[in-house]
Amino acid sequence: MKALVFQGPGQTAWQDVPDPAIKDAADAIVRVDAVTICGTDLHIVKGDVPEVTPGRILGHEAVGTVVEIGGDVHTVRPGDRVLISCISSCGRCSYCRESRYGQCRGGGGWVLGHTIDGAQAEYVRVPFADLSVHLLPSAVESHDAVLLADIFPTSYEVGVLNGKVRPGDTVVVVGAGPIGLAAIATARLYSPGRIIAVDLAESRLAAARAFGADATAGATEQPEQLVADLTDGLGADVVIEAVGVPEAFEMCTRMVRPGGRVANIGVHGKPATLHLEDLWIKDVTITTGLVDTSSTPMLLRMMAAGRLPGGELVTHRFELGQMEEAYDVFSRAGDTGALKVVLGGPQHDVVASAAGHETDGA
Amino acid sequence: MKALVFQGPGQTAWQDVPDPAIKDAADAIVRVDAVTICGTDLHIVKGDVPEVTPGRILGHEAVGTVVEIGGDVHTVRPGDRVLISCISSCGRCSYCRESRYGQCRGGGGWVLGHTIDGAQAEYVRVPFADLSVHLLPSAVESHDAVLLADIFPTSYEVGVLNGKVRPGDTVVVVGAGPIGLAAIATARLYSPGRIIAVDLAESRLAAARAFGADATAGATEQPEQLVADLTDGLGADVVIEAVGVPEAFEMCTRMVRPGGRVANIGVHGKPATLHLEDLWIKDVTITTGLVDTSSTPMLLRMMAAGRLPGGELVTHRFELGQMEEAYDVFSRAGDTGALKVVLGGPQHDVVASAAGHETDGA
Amino acid sequence: MKALVFQGPGQTAWQDVPDPAIKDAADAIVRVDAVTICGTDLHIVKGDVPEVTPGRILGHEAVGTVVEIGGDVHTVRPGDRVLISCISSCGRCSYCRESRYGQCRGGGGWVLGHTIDGAQAEYVRVPFADLSVHLLPSAVESHDAVLLADIFPTSYEVGVLNGKVRPGDTVVVVGAGPIGLAAIATARLYSPGRIIAVDLAESRLAAARAFGADATAGATEQPEQLVADLTDGLGADVVIEAVGVPEAFEMCTRMVRPGGRVANIGVHGKPATLHLEDLWIKDVTITTGLVDTSSTPMLLRMMAAGRLPGGELVTHRFELGQMEEAYDVFSRAGDTGALKVVLGGPQHDVVASAAGHETDGA
Amino acid sequence: MKALVFQGPGQTAWQDVPDPAIKDAADAIVRVDAVTICGTDLHIVKGDVPEVTPGRILGHEAVGTVVEIGGDVHTVRPGDRVLISCISSCGRCSYCRESRYGQCRGGGGWVLGHTIDGAQAEYVRVPFADLSVHLLPSAVESHDAVLLADIFPTSYEVGVLNGKVRPGDTVVVVGAGPIGLAAIATARLYSPGRIIAVDLAESRLAAARAFGADATAGATEQPEQLVADLTDGLGADVVIEAVGVPEAFEMCTRMVRPGGRVANIGVHGKPATLHLEDLWIKDVTITTGLVDTSSTPMLLRMMAAGRLPGGELVTHRFELGQMEEAYDVFSRAGDTGALKVVLGGPQHDVVASAAGHETDGA
Repeated sequence: MKALVFQGPGQTAWQDVPDPAIKDAADAIVRVDAVTICGTDLHIVKGDVPEVTPGRILGHEAVGTVVEIGGDVHTVRPGDRVLISCISSCGRCSYCRESRYGQCRGGGGWVLGHTIDGAQAEYVRVPFADLSVHLLPSAVESHDAVLLADIFPTSYEVGVLNGKVRPGDTVVVVGAGPIGLAAIATARLYSPGRIIAVDLAESRLAAARAFGADATAGATEQPEQLVADLTDGLGADVVIEAVGVPEAFEMCTRMVRPGGRVANIGVHGKPATLHLEDLWIKDVTITTGLVDTSSTPMLLRMMAAGRLPGGELVTHRFELGQMEEAYDVFSRAGDTGALKVVLGGPQHDVVASAAGHETDGA
Repeated sequence: MKALVFQGPGQTAWQDVPDPAIKDAADAIVRVDAVTICGTDLHIVKGDVPEVTPGRILGHEAVGTVVEIGGDVHTVRPGDRVLISCISSCGRCSYCRESRYGQCRGGGGWVLGHTIDGAQAEYVRVPFADLSVHLLPSAVESHDAVLLADIFPTSYEVGVLNGKVRPGDTVVVVGAGPIGLAAIATARLYSPGRIIAVDLAESRLAAARAFGADATAGATEQPEQLVADLTDGLGADVVIEAVGVPEAFEMCTRMVRPGGRVANIGVHGKPATLHLEDLWIKDVTITTGLVDTSSTPMLLRMMAAGRLPGGELVTHRFELGQMEEAYDVFSRAGDTGALKVVLGGPQHDVVASAAGHETDGA
Repeated sequence: MKALVFQGPGQTAWQDVPDPAIKDAADAIVRVDAVTICGTDLHIVKGDVPEVTPGRILGHEAVGTVVEIGGDVHTVRPGDRVLISCISSCGRCSYCRESRYGQCRGGGGWVLGHTIDGAQAEYVRVPFADLSVHLLPSAVESHDAVLLADIFPTSYEVGVLNGKVRPGDTVVVVGAGPIGLAAIATARLYSPGRIIAVDLAESRLAAARAFGADATAGATEQPEQLVADLTDGLGADVVIEAVGVPEAFEMCTRMVRPGGRVANIGVHGKPATLHLEDLWIKDVTITTGLVDTSSTPMLLRMMAAGRLPGGELVTHRFELGQMEEAYDVFSRAGDTGALKVVLGGPQHDVVASAAGHETDGA
Repeated sequence: MKALVFQGPGQTAWQDVPDPAIKDAADAIVRVDAVTICGTDLHIVKGDVPEVTPGRILGHEAVGTVVEIGGDVHTVRPGDRVLISCISSCGRCSYCRESRYGQCRGGGGWVLGHTIDGAQAEYVRVPFADLSVHLLPSAVESHDAVLLADIFPTSYEVGVLNGKVRPGDTVVVVGAGPIGLAAIATARLYSPGRIIAVDLAESRLAAARAFGADATAGATEQPEQLVADLTDGLGADVVIEAVGVPEAFEMCTRMVRPGGRVANIGVHGKPATLHLEDLWIKDVTITTGLVDTSSTPMLLRMMAAGRLPGGELVTHRFELGQMEEAYDVFSRAGDTGALKVVLGGPQHDVVASAAGHETDGA
């Protein structure tokens, strides 16, 4: 089959590789119908994630069709259309027993496209399939569902739930890329009184307003002053960091009110300064986290009911074979305006069906 | 009357000052029966707390007897023996309505010995008396009760409750001074599986063991390794910072397990480095806070029932007039072994009564 | 002034009574601009509430203008337009300190129109005014705001918060009168996946759909079967009782899924049968409660922002002097279709201003 | 092998049956080293539990040694000494994913000795072994550990956690049988201020005091008055029902303070009367539930550390072959004073080893 293979810092290729095969009785082999690229993939390609070694197939956000299962898989069958969660779960360790799948110590957690081969490929082996894929209702299109593999549960769990957004709250979302926009969309499930989005790019602030931000602040607009003005100088109830740089995190800690919460979603590569000389007295809660995807079943029901935005986040569509072009467009988001790029999806489904791909392999 | 007056950085004096008087209908005037010195007072004396201006009477932890009340005080009467909370509460602002008295925006919060005259004096004016003093049951001695003015509720609320200590947890307390020891004592209310105390001074580690620490680690004993060894390399469920320096805080963030909590109690004067490049993925919750003293009624009941240690924290006793000597002993804790020093108490009660002090003043 | 006076079971009159006067330094006298009638008032009139004795002025849901304050009132001044909460709070007892104002043991709780004279009058004395009235922003009309005196916070706190409604949940509301409709409106703040309303009257089910119910079931439509059908036989996550009769409560306990919550809002006059032989194994949580009105400031902000429905609940408007006619219409809701009836409001404001009512009284 | 077989209402026999065998790849076969009898078993024998059909081997609380595992068992191996939980967990259904194993919809829940053969036998087949047995540390004796199969997690989860016991609380435990005593022991993990035990039998009240009750009330001692006297007439914070009859439950609802919690543990065969005419206004939370055993790992650690009582609950010891005699003693607890009876244990281990039982099969 074809797959996107990491070949060392700065180097990837869409190339022929062996088809994946069942290795463990809990595995499933899934044909990829739609897949997307994550900001984390760009970090990997740059060489920032040393656990990813040359030869690794990338990708951890996909939708597909089960083509084969191991003897110990009970909840899905060949032919089932499934969401592949970015997080796998052994189901047996102390973390999985508390639904903290992201911290799985039994071989799961974030493994796809990281420590095992991922989903930017025609087929992918998914470990612990019973707990790591979700059956898709027919009402949900693949190119919408693929957003539930990572960014919606991440924004909801690590941003909105960790931040404990409540009705009436003032919520600030710093960073209006795909994760920040999904944080705005999922924060609205708790009816905050006001959502303020902060970003450097006006185009992203426009997207933030379309997703439900009530106010926005750009680079030249003194976001801290805006938050102070809108809250009688008190600060925001919840501030969500969706950038991943020290300056953004530090701004978050200045924008939060006494008694408020700062929920970090951003992937950081450097330490930040924590101004404890100001914060020690301020009753602030700061959280970090990797997604558990424990909310995925609920988010899937909400998307099926039309209660979550989907395709609005997808700015570019490609055939699966256009992987390298898609990477190029996504990596130049400042120029291309890319939010999420999706490869495969409906067209691909048709093509694949016509080709009778299932019959010849995997 | 006599009082301990701040006269600028490095300068204080136990001197004659005018007796306090009722200024507001919600005030009470309280004769001080027992009072203690807080580490924060030492910071003030050094000049580190600029809001405290020369002329201010210091002190925010005391027990006394009500001698006069304003027209709007309903819950105490002259003659009542009361605990003076370090936190005053207006009872009307949005924070007080949520029991977050420490963040009071209506004139309360930490004001005694900070923005108004405090309790290291023969008499003190307590604002918002209904919500800021607590009637003492006769079963509780003044020199024990004075520990409920600040250090017990602070350790419990900002350390144990913010840290969400649960039965069976591994809890690390970094810093075994008075606050750290009170954190050990109050953490035990939740039956953690194991409490590990960390300090540089062996004498304090011995005190930690006496207060209930199951294991201790000193400067030369690699505390991080001890925590790892005792938790299969996972880290602690809860780490409580009770020092107030960047190095201690940063060690806390290295000792916590994925999914664990770091509760900062320490008063910090400098920023710390937050290693988000390690922590972003680790599901860590970090909390800061000033005490609200919302737990004081419960802690008082527990002390009256003999369920909390009291006098064991008090290493030195003085007459009220020995204030300057007490400051000297407390400020040289490394040499003197001081934990809490208490001025006044039973002897003082006798003396004061004999002198009929109430009749000639306030 | 004129007021609606209870004269014994079945007897009330809109009659002349003395104007109220300040009795305590924490009191305020408020001119009533808009007032409504509660189902509880009908119970009182029938004689079902023995604490209400003849001579009592009824009414506990009103909006008005402060005309006089006691010496200990700090947060409102004469001329301020305020919401009068159905619950008064002493602010000092153990319940008030936990924001459980409905259970106040210091002279507050539900007292207006119950144990002291109420607000179905031209003027009313409000005790503990600082904690028992709320300043109204100009954006909120009196005839909308009056719904925040009781039914919105009651539905939200006792129904939605006690029931712990979460995004995606299936919520059943049994009873689609004013309280049930407000429960539907406020449940939506948490984005449940589906709200099912149950009532005997088709007109009320139509109102439920207008307020956001996704499905409804009438008397002949087997509501338990509908819930089972919509939840794969599992039952609802949350069931809210908004009727107050044993049959309705018992139906709620049959509709809830294992692990779900039944939140009772209904005012009951008789015991219900609790089928513990079925429920003991089922992980069910049942809650009861009187409103605390601790959520009123948030609900007020949401109403000011247009995020809560208001006037849609008001089916009939009257002048204040038409109190007896309003009672008649409200008590025959089955015939008149009454949901909430409001007396006073904008027209009244105009009339009152023109008459310069403030100058000749109170 | 020998096993205790239910033969219809009133009839059981310790008789020869075929050895159990692996049926599913997730099964384990465990040799029973220690087993106990539950009050629920007595209900089954009487014929009160219709799902239990003649031919069923009873028993759901045991400790044993793994002798064989299916191909999909990963966490235990033959030779491992394990606690057999009374609850099995499929690990895949929506309830298991939330750690609500007691409500498992995938074939687990309470199945042992109920819908499949149980553990009052020489060997038992345990389904879903990975999630349904717990490795025993050598520090924990079998006759102590067997109490962790059901009564300790049941009392803790369904009584103490559902009741939200907090430091300083007044807790009433109604019923001082094994479950009530375990509720007292585990409530103490949260340091309540006072535990009051209620029972008809003085011998059980004596046991309650030994387990940590601070006050007790018998049949002639007006328990409701005692609770009122000790709480200034307010009522208890938490009341735990550990009997299972309507009168006991109803007394619980009269003893709870406004804002308090009633946690039902008792297995009920009849409905109770819920006095909603009194309770609707009282902010009461009532919970029911089957144990999930999600707390078992923590309780096991606490027992290994000597932080939970064990053998004190065991009043009678028998050889495994004395099953019928043990049933007789346990069913006449009023005469025999039986709390828990344990069959097997250390002596049995020795005997079994001597006989080389492992070598001849299962």
